[in-house]
Amino acid sequence: MTPDERLAELGLALPEIPSLPFVPRLRPVLVHEGIAYLSGIGPVGVAGRVGETLGVEAGYAAARETALLALRRLVDEVGALDRVARWIRVLGFVRSAPGFGDQPSVLNGFTDLVVAVFGEERGLCARSAIGVSELPAGIPVEVEAAVALRV
Amino acid sequence: MTPDERLAELGLALPEIPSLPFVPRLRPVLVHEGIAYLSGIGPVGVAGRVGETLGVEAGYAAARETALLALRRLVDEVGALDRVARWIRVLGFVRSAPGFGDQPSVLNGFTDLVVAVFGEERGLCARSAIGVSELPAGIPVEVEAAVALRV
Amino acid sequence: MTPDERLAELGLALPEIPSLPFVPRLRPVLVHEGIAYLSGIGPVGVAGRVGETLGVEAGYAAARETALLALRRLVDEVGALDRVARWIRVLGFVRSAPGFGDQPSVLNGFTDLVVAVFGEERGLCARSAIGVSELPAGIPVEVEAAVALRV
Repeated sequence: MTPDERLAELGLALPEIPSLPFVPRLRPVLVHEGIAYLSGIGPVGVAGRVGETLGVEAGYAAARETALLALRRLVDEVGALDRVARWIRVLGFVRSAPGFGDQPSVLNGFTDLVVAVFGEERGLCARSAIGVSELPAGIPVEVEAAVALRV
Repeated sequence: MTPDERLAELGLALPEIPSLPFVPRLRPVLVHEGIAYLSGIGPVGVAGRVGETLGVEAGYAAARETALLALRRLVDEVGALDRVARWIRVLGFVRSAPGFGDQPSVLNGFTDLVVAVFGEERGLCARSAIGVSELPAGIPVEVEAAVALRV
Repeated sequence: MTPDERLAELGLALPEIPSLPFVPRLRPVLVHEGIAYLSGIGPVGVAGRVGETLGVEAGYAAARETALLALRRLVDEVGALDRVARWIRVLGFVRSAPGFGDQPSVLNGFTDLVVAVFGEERGLCARSAIGVSELPAGIPVEVEAAVALRV
């Protein structure tokens, strides 16, 4: 089963990328020598700090939504999820209340979705989870990633 | 027109790298298999938080200055800006006051300058904008980047 | 002398990876086309903010411990430190008290150890030092890295 078929089987549809409250000077996805570099993305429209206005479960849901947005950007750039050979690296930032230290469980919302769609062999990758005080437009999660493409 | 010629046409000169208030154990630029990895750099000598002691325009100016310093480091390592095939990825951190959420507009100071010098085709790249509470010596912006070189 | 021999000469042994207080969905090290991508790692069991509950020296020690844990993960994945051709890039986050700005000296604990083991030619690499408010389980330092392997 391809990742695209698996996404359908999970009953998931890729959302459209919402318009942003700012005009960033960037490419959403840049492909260089077989690697797709994804710009930082988050669940635009959701705001808050995890451990304060949002609980871990809401943060997990925001990270899962972030993954779907990242997949949408990937598909828009490379045509199909099956173009992905493997996920290489995910760097995730969680907007965290003072003293909140469970960024890894929040970011599992992103990587659980990726693994559900691509499988462990292609989806499980290196990951870092960082807590920060602020993110653009107050979003609770932002993720950048690098993904290897099939030649 | 080469990026070096474009820089001159814009009336811009690359600044010298100021001496740092600490001695970091790093290479400013490391080249590996055709990619130049730039260590985090910021406008040493400027301090403050955007959204508090600095406005968005001052943050933008600091990010633009950061880009000029990054270009200086690149030239010092690879000889000429025209060695750059394309910018791949920019990861930018903005020292942000509580509640400040316009990190993307601040980092446009970096990427606008890069695009002005290299053009959209070579200069526009993947980018992430993150808000953090502290940066070395209190600088308002720090950027790390990866740049592909011509073979 | 190989890095493995140098480590022994320094009287250093690689620690076992402690069990984590959460179950992150990731690969500790992912190797893709000759580059080992290391997931973010820190000194699990140590908590605190540098500039507040921890001084710079304690932060340096935590970063050095982080380096030993990273080497353990590398060895577990690739078999021997001598498989490393060169360190490419280190991205380090220091959990920082308000106003603390000496993240570079803290992260020297990581890169000094790497250079001591691998030498300047193979060990000195691009590096960024960022101050953040929170990290998983309150650890004072987290580092992710990319390392080139010998073919």
